[in-house]
Amino acid sequence: MLLPLVFVRKPVSCIFSPDFLSFPAAVNKSAILGVQGWQQLGLTGTLLTRLPVCLTIKEWVRQLAEEKRAHRKHTKDLPDTHHICKRCSKDCHSRMGDLQLCKLDELDCLIKGVLYIDSVGFNGNSECYYFENPTDCEKCQKLPFNLENPYPLLLVNIGSGVSILAVYSKDNYKRVTGTSLGGGTFFGLCCLLTGCSTFEEALEMASRGDSTKVDKLVRDIYGGDYERFGLPGWAVASSFGNMMSKEKRESVSKEDLARATLITITNNIGSIARMCALNENINRVVFVGNFLRINTISMRLLAYALDYWSKGQLKALFLEHEGYFGAVGAFLELLSSA
Amino acid sequence: MLLPLVFVRKPVSCIFSPDFLSFPAAVNKSAILGVQGWQQLGLTGTLLTRLPVCLTIKEWVRQLAEEKRAHRKHTKDLPDTHHICKRCSKDCHSRMGDLQLCKLDELDCLIKGVLYIDSVGFNGNSECYYFENPTDCEKCQKLPFNLENPYPLLLVNIGSGVSILAVYSKDNYKRVTGTSLGGGTFFGLCCLLTGCSTFEEALEMASRGDSTKVDKLVRDIYGGDYERFGLPGWAVASSFGNMMSKEKRESVSKEDLARATLITITNNIGSIARMCALNENINRVVFVGNFLRINTISMRLLAYALDYWSKGQLKALFLEHEGYFGAVGAFLELLSSA
Repeated sequence: MLLPLVFVRKPVSCIFSPDFLSFPAAVNKSAILGVQGWQQLGLTGTLLTRLPVCLTIKEWVRQLAEEKRAHRKHTKDLPDTHHICKRCSKDCHSRMGDLQLCKLDELDCLIKGVLYIDSVGFNGNSECYYFENPTDCEKCQKLPFNLENPYPLLLVNIGSGVSILAVYSKDNYKRVTGTSLGGGTFFGLCCLLTGCSTFEEALEMASRGDSTKVDKLVRDIYGGDYERFGLPGWAVASSFGNMMSKEKRESVSKEDLARATLITITNNIGSIARMCALNENINRVVFVGNFLRINTISMRLLAYALDYWSKGQLKALFLEHEGYFGAVGAFLELLSSA
Repeated sequence: MLLPLVFVRKPVSCIFSPDFLSFPAAVNKSAILGVQGWQQLGLTGTLLTRLPVCLTIKEWVRQLAEEKRAHRKHTKDLPDTHHICKRCSKDCHSRMGDLQLCKLDELDCLIKGVLYIDSVGFNGNSECYYFENPTDCEKCQKLPFNLENPYPLLLVNIGSGVSILAVYSKDNYKRVTGTSLGGGTFFGLCCLLTGCSTFEEALEMASRGDSTKVDKLVRDIYGGDYERFGLPGWAVASSFGNMMSKEKRESVSKEDLARATLITITNNIGSIARMCALNENINRVVFVGNFLRINTISMRLLAYALDYWSKGQLKALFLEHEGYFGAVGAFLELLSSA
């Protein structure tokens, strides 16, 4: 089924479908809650997002209402998050005030969303792509990749943390592992180290920095390559290793620190993904998640690192819509169960 | 052969053997250089260390001389580091001025040192130990572990970066992988985030901090456990993830940041080591390296994490002398080739 999907880039994942007059919001807590009947907020369409647990449902709806300049009169009786979570953990479908809730699993929805979006394509073009010559500024090319037969694939979802899934078929997948060093670590550390206040600002600073001033490289320790173990001189031996020296701390810029943070987190994810791919005997690794949004540095680095360290055995793949797949999957799930 | 070894805890690794009157210094650059004839510096004994490439040999010897209150008259004609490294990469043995150089491989020496020190024991006691009930302050016990039949073992060497070796016999090992997030990352980041200036200070701050204020936990996102994928609510979902919020940044202390840095680096090493152990089908993991010096927090966390995530299949082992094994191995190598 092809739906008129419009992606809106917002702090919350939004999908609007003009044909869908009610307003189900998919809110997640190991669960995605579908909420209906929010036309009162002045919104039409479909909104799906993971609930920020730091807010109560009430605060969250209020924020949404403010963003949309809608009125708040229907938010006062909303229960708080934990109350909803508790109810939702018992019943798959539930009703609370004028909210209809539907509980779905986040990772189920993620995979469903990825497969669906890839299958419908992107304005007639391929949704999936890879980089050729990722480290060469002049020769680097973004090329379409045909993911028609997607299985098996390793799906690396980089949000604030990272989940790595081995997907063997539409309904058969497992969470292989994960790492807590993800987009939240990059942005959180950048805020602390540079005083930046948005993800975009952090990335912009990183684009102008030099991480080799911050990191200790293999050549800084061994004077060149450590040939016997295949470690090139340019590889990072110790992330932030130069920052042990007061003199070097005083000579780096905020941009250098932002770049080093980005390189550290990206390399770590690439290295863990590579180990998982080898263990699972899977050679296609699809990286998704909003950490990759407007983040060409990380995508090219992942592409290069996977190719280099696997000696060409592994391929890093990306999707035009890097995030929101969980929301898309939840939306499809709601439709199919309607 | 049993030697009267005395371990001296210094920024450089020192082993003194009263019987050994010359002064060979083992300096490493994918290589360990044995330097003889330094009695002129007022030193007797044997010193083995990896050369800090940031200094020239001349500066380094000058520093050593100052530390030992020895005179410097023989340092003026020493060549710089890169010159030595270059010569040493060609010739296994070389002579430069009154220095006799001997090139050895760092990881060969590390393994030789670990096996030797374990075989001679620690003042009649076992060198190798493990933790029982590592997270329970009252019940936690350090117990001896018999490493008489050590193979196969996974050796995780945590210096400024991390190398992970699968050791199948005395002469048969491979470097499985490594990570650049090691002791240098912990200390470098701590210096930046807290203004501390020594490793000891960083650890002391970490011991008084609370990382859960800095990290976003699974329960902060899902409201509890994410049971379907075996993720307990207390697990870290996003390291430093709370630091995306200005309000939370303003409410954490330097001690909290130091603790979060320590937990982040330690968990990441534990997680990568666990994956390697599974891939190599090895269930004993020996953690060594100076990152573990006076660092009970990390050792207990590694012990717990390995046991918990492997459901009791993997055992984390530690050695009484957590570092300097490379220096010991180099020393033994010099003796056997003498």
